[in-house]
Amino acid sequence: MQSIKVGLLGFGTIGTGVVRVFQQNQDLLASRLGASLELVRIADLDTTTDRGVQLVPGLLTDDAQGLLNDPDIQIVIELIGGYEPARTFVLQAIRNGKHVVTANKALLAMHGEEIFRAAEEAGVNVMFEAAVGGGIPVISAIKENLGANNFSALYGILNGTCNYILTQMDEDGADFSNVLADAQQQGYAETDPTFDVEGIDTAHKLALLISLCFGINVDFNQIYTEGISKVTAIDIAFARDFGYKLKLLAIGKRDGDRVEARVHPTMVPIGYPLSTISGVFNSVRLVGDFSGPVMLSGYGAGMDATASAVMGDVIAAARDQLSDSGARVPALGCPQAQLIPCEIKPMDQVVTAYYLRFTVKDNPGVLAQIAGILGKYEISIESMIQPHRHEAEAVPIVFMTHESEERNVIAALAEIDKLDVIQEETLLIRVEENLE
Amino acid sequence: MQSIKVGLLGFGTIGTGVVRVFQQNQDLLASRLGASLELVRIADLDTTTDRGVQLVPGLLTDDAQGLLNDPDIQIVIELIGGYEPARTFVLQAIRNGKHVVTANKALLAMHGEEIFRAAEEAGVNVMFEAAVGGGIPVISAIKENLGANNFSALYGILNGTCNYILTQMDEDGADFSNVLADAQQQGYAETDPTFDVEGIDTAHKLALLISLCFGINVDFNQIYTEGISKVTAIDIAFARDFGYKLKLLAIGKRDGDRVEARVHPTMVPIGYPLSTISGVFNSVRLVGDFSGPVMLSGYGAGMDATASAVMGDVIAAARDQLSDSGARVPALGCPQAQLIPCEIKPMDQVVTAYYLRFTVKDNPGVLAQIAGILGKYEISIESMIQPHRHEAEAVPIVFMTHESEERNVIAALAEIDKLDVIQEETLLIRVEENLE
Repeated sequence: MQSIKVGLLGFGTIGTGVVRVFQQNQDLLASRLGASLELVRIADLDTTTDRGVQLVPGLLTDDAQGLLNDPDIQIVIELIGGYEPARTFVLQAIRNGKHVVTANKALLAMHGEEIFRAAEEAGVNVMFEAAVGGGIPVISAIKENLGANNFSALYGILNGTCNYILTQMDEDGADFSNVLADAQQQGYAETDPTFDVEGIDTAHKLALLISLCFGINVDFNQIYTEGISKVTAIDIAFARDFGYKLKLLAIGKRDGDRVEARVHPTMVPIGYPLSTISGVFNSVRLVGDFSGPVMLSGYGAGMDATASAVMGDVIAAARDQLSDSGARVPALGCPQAQLIPCEIKPMDQVVTAYYLRFTVKDNPGVLAQIAGILGKYEISIESMIQPHRHEAEAVPIVFMTHESEERNVIAALAEIDKLDVIQEETLLIRVEENLE
Repeated sequence: MQSIKVGLLGFGTIGTGVVRVFQQNQDLLASRLGASLELVRIADLDTTTDRGVQLVPGLLTDDAQGLLNDPDIQIVIELIGGYEPARTFVLQAIRNGKHVVTANKALLAMHGEEIFRAAEEAGVNVMFEAAVGGGIPVISAIKENLGANNFSALYGILNGTCNYILTQMDEDGADFSNVLADAQQQGYAETDPTFDVEGIDTAHKLALLISLCFGINVDFNQIYTEGISKVTAIDIAFARDFGYKLKLLAIGKRDGDRVEARVHPTMVPIGYPLSTISGVFNSVRLVGDFSGPVMLSGYGAGMDATASAVMGDVIAAARDQLSDSGARVPALGCPQAQLIPCEIKPMDQVVTAYYLRFTVKDNPGVLAQIAGILGKYEISIESMIQPHRHEAEAVPIVFMTHESEERNVIAALAEIDKLDVIQEETLLIRVEENLE
């Protein structure tokens, strides 16, 4: 029986999950491949902490160079995370002719072009199914199974921490900071949650999905990114009254030669499939011209689900190795030379509907003042709720608008927020009515 | 630029969809592959009907043999359907060293072993993503992305006709025969709907999914198959009262050395994700030991969605051709020699919960008689509804049981149905409480 040899860089949580798959499902892997799949080396600076898995002596070292230069190793799994030394190690593995499997979305969102080009030149794979949507096979779906489709749109719930927080806020009526503290205690949120709650992690994943769906090179910095830290329980309750759930949505849409790429809290109609994805689950909805909408859901993070995705890629790389097919599927689904530079539509030109929560001194005439300014900027109002009347206190007035251009809304709010009756900066949440 | 040449057998609805993908998305296909993908021949006995697509003269012939023996053609798409001549043509294409892409679940459920063995011997692919779940990439998910998982269970809504009928019955309170007639008129059901409504199509698909998930050869005839033709609007209304939706579910479960494989109307808890799949949509939920539950949803049928899946396979076969990798992924996800013969658990040993609708002459003591017999067979009752009381008329009494062994339930019903007070054969619908 042939043997495929694998090296693992990074022995943290997901690395431990990967080791568990190798140990627990060794026979299954061998039967799938008709060859044995062996984890022959693990490199991590920390060689002493007990990760709860038994290792044969000598398997774990702190010598990454030894692993990267071991000619027996055909596949390198990178689970270090972050930019460096991950970038250097990945490029080195590629130059040494090894397939690379990684879960590192930050690295690929920032240095993908360099890494994918290097892989193409070396004729090896860089696979990253685990980088988006944990155990959900969305990357392969786009570049392989649905590869014959021109995609018009993709919508994703891509961060389990945010979805967990929003679900808890919805269910308990609790405020962001309380739920975040809870989530941190339960291990669903990091000690420094910025990357997750400010939408950066979601934007990294969207950058990859957009490149794949639309066959373009994306400048990550052009993706509009807004997190959930300003959302309040009041807004979630209003959303429900209007018939919506609040989700941190990653949105990619083709619009002629341009592409919309944005991450922000979004009101999604109750009953629309993405509205039913709750807790730590992730989901991606892809809209192809022939497939129609295809939705994939599952655990978006966690040791085991992510390890499942990593090992799916390892199986694919091993099959390439066994069939001597080099890099059979390009990293982004088409050769680098076929990728089109593509303009991201500036956020202020995006057209969508809006939820606007004004905080006002409640006196007669306020409504007319606000509505007047909205009208001046051609923002038409679909509905309005003015729930309480406590003379002289700050109270919310909520408007749902019809579709409007973002720059008009921003300009109108700037003018409205200067009014004497406005007590706080107005809160804006985008509303997606026309989800496919 | 290299060119991959494709032949199409069968120019019906899905064949027409495939031709449309070739025409409409030619540039996309070329950019994905870095090679051109050419449809060079279509064979169909009917060469005259206008399918609404323009063909270059000479492309369409009635000469299947010419196509099968054309040495330039590297990939053959089989969309004839049925057993013969599809089987003979597929085997011939394989022997001639061509990759085969098919949507023919009936053929593969009955003759899969013969075809897959022939393909393995010839070193070519037999790909059939379009055979299950239309445009949903479930086959690849099992044998590639989730390939490192041991699966404990799979649940599928796999027939759009049945799901459409059940959804309409639920929404309109209409009866089966009326909704079926409507569905036929709208093109959602065939003139002879037996294959769909009696669950046979779903069982064909389940046979394939079970082979893939559990790495076994399945005898299709051992799959318990019950359709939806006996379901009434009353049962759907009762299901709702008890907190369930009624779905035609395909269920595969590992149980030690054996596998449960069954297709039947099933009550699914409202709120459980599969309960939200309505109309012509299909969905599959796979439960892996590392991935946890992964759910894939989309159009389960239709010209375009099915063509999308066919062309996804064509892309994969073309990539194998371009990288000279032969049959890189075995048809069932592992080499034929690795497949384990596996016993299907006999239906009478299955343990599940039950909805039992008795039709009785309503007089005092009926309930006690029924409950007594259920008790004798160790069937414990979870809840009961006895909605109407019209002395001397036939009225329904509905029981929901706790989990019981099927043979006990069958024996109890045989005894109960002999009682004088029973007016009609008792209706049994299985209830899945413990869906993962």
